[in-house]
Amino acid sequence: MVEVLVWLGTLIFAATGALKGVEKGFDLLGVLVLATVTAVGGGSIRDVLVGTLPPTALHNEPLLWSVVLTGLLVFRFHPRVQAMERLIYYLDTLGLGLFAALGAERGLVSGLGPFGVALAGTLSGVGGGVLRDVLSGEVPGILYRAGDLYASAALVGALVVYALYGTHPEGALFAGTLATVLLRIFGRRLGLRLPTPR
Amino acid sequence: MVEVLVWLGTLIFAATGALKGVEKGFDLLGVLVLATVTAVGGGSIRDVLVGTLPPTALHNEPLLWSVVLTGLLVFRFHPRVQAMERLIYYLDTLGLGLFAALGAERGLVSGLGPFGVALAGTLSGVGGGVLRDVLSGEVPGILYRAGDLYASAALVGALVVYALYGTHPEGALFAGTLATVLLRIFGRRLGLRLPTPR
Amino acid sequence: MVEVLVWLGTLIFAATGALKGVEKGFDLLGVLVLATVTAVGGGSIRDVLVGTLPPTALHNEPLLWSVVLTGLLVFRFHPRVQAMERLIYYLDTLGLGLFAALGAERGLVSGLGPFGVALAGTLSGVGGGVLRDVLSGEVPGILYRAGDLYASAALVGALVVYALYGTHPEGALFAGTLATVLLRIFGRRLGLRLPTPR
Repeated sequence: MVEVLVWLGTLIFAATGALKGVEKGFDLLGVLVLATVTAVGGGSIRDVLVGTLPPTALHNEPLLWSVVLTGLLVFRFHPRVQAMERLIYYLDTLGLGLFAALGAERGLVSGLGPFGVALAGTLSGVGGGVLRDVLSGEVPGILYRAGDLYASAALVGALVVYALYGTHPEGALFAGTLATVLLRIFGRRLGLRLPTPR
Repeated sequence: MVEVLVWLGTLIFAATGALKGVEKGFDLLGVLVLATVTAVGGGSIRDVLVGTLPPTALHNEPLLWSVVLTGLLVFRFHPRVQAMERLIYYLDTLGLGLFAALGAERGLVSGLGPFGVALAGTLSGVGGGVLRDVLSGEVPGILYRAGDLYASAALVGALVVYALYGTHPEGALFAGTLATVLLRIFGRRLGLRLPTPR
Repeated sequence: MVEVLVWLGTLIFAATGALKGVEKGFDLLGVLVLATVTAVGGGSIRDVLVGTLPPTALHNEPLLWSVVLTGLLVFRFHPRVQAMERLIYYLDTLGLGLFAALGAERGLVSGLGPFGVALAGTLSGVGGGVLRDVLSGEVPGILYRAGDLYASAALVGALVVYALYGTHPEGALFAGTLATVLLRIFGRRLGLRLPTPR
């Protein structure tokens, strides 16, 4: 079940990376590179930081090939994929929540404290997108999109996992994912915004 | 004593990162991300390269929370912090010297030669600032600010540590830090400039 | 023989990095940083990912000093180096092929599958150039230069190594290098282009 969801999240991240490459007018290789980096970059940064080398994604051949296949499909059918904007938004949010929760778990297993766990979870969720943005020549959206609680939702989800994991590991992962998803979706609906400097 | 100075250096780096985020108009999360990356990024890059995983900073919860607190204070009181420009300049230079010297020591302990030690020291001192600049969409200042001997001062400090460490470890760290600090401050006063291509 | 070629490739990469720094008007330190990053960055990223820490290049003092010497020569004599454009093109292609093939071998030894090996090889070949471009404030050329089969040539070379290594390791490295070199050079001559999104 979790594995199915991780696949889903990874492939959605791949699709958002490929879409960015299409928008930028990159060539086929560039689109596939952005798909791959977005899909497995966050988890790989976290794996490097906690010392799991090679990163687990590098061993997961079926997943990597599926990422490339997703990139190819987006390259070929991007207008139709772009038309599914709402669906991508929800699935991307689900992927964010899952990756943040599972990344937080890895931080816990590596013996990190609350801040370290929050960092491991958030990086797992947003690190791939940050790499995608930097490679595309853009400032990472998580740094300034005050009206989209993306990295902050991942951060809260990771902290939920930290708080509850000792009591009930699976429940903690579920609650953390849910916290991220709800915070992002209802944050936007309620018009929540991060403060910006005056 | 050294630990107090490392805390001071880390928090100053955090403040310069947060200031950059404020200047760029990032949101609260962006400001805190830049504070954290600037404060612990250089040491973490070095730790990844020498294989100390997870990086030591990820385990140092009190330091990490202090970094975030510093970021929050800068976010809230940035005009007053910006007014302390001179003080920040001197403390930032002290932090640079300390991090370069302590990073060089880590390179020595990992069995690196002079170039490797110089790289480990310099990266410890400037790596966080480079990440900060790249995430902010800017070309890293160390690459072109010919009139500010910043990375080159760190490099010289790291080489001083390399040269003297065998004779007297603590003296070497002190001399290396001092070399970086003096070179940066008097370099500017004397109008020293790195050559640029003709 | 292989070692001589690796030196040659590394120093050519150093020269292309230094040239980029000169073009950008960076100072001497910036030029040397780009030379170093371009020369040893790709192999170091690969070493981090497969867990060889510190990266082997950090231990290779003679190579590192030669990289800096190359950077100094380019800094001083850049008009003459730029005039050797064609020679640099061919040597850079040879370096790309070698690094991709040797990087693929490292991936194989680390137990990666075909995608992981392709990634390890390609990153070894192009990672330094990607870091160079990002630090210079540019979008990495490999993402959009549809008419220059650079990263894709490295990818094909790495896959050739993957396919043949079990039969004849040395032959595989030779064939992989050759595949990259021929694909890049004849790809351009034949006007091969990667597709771009419609």
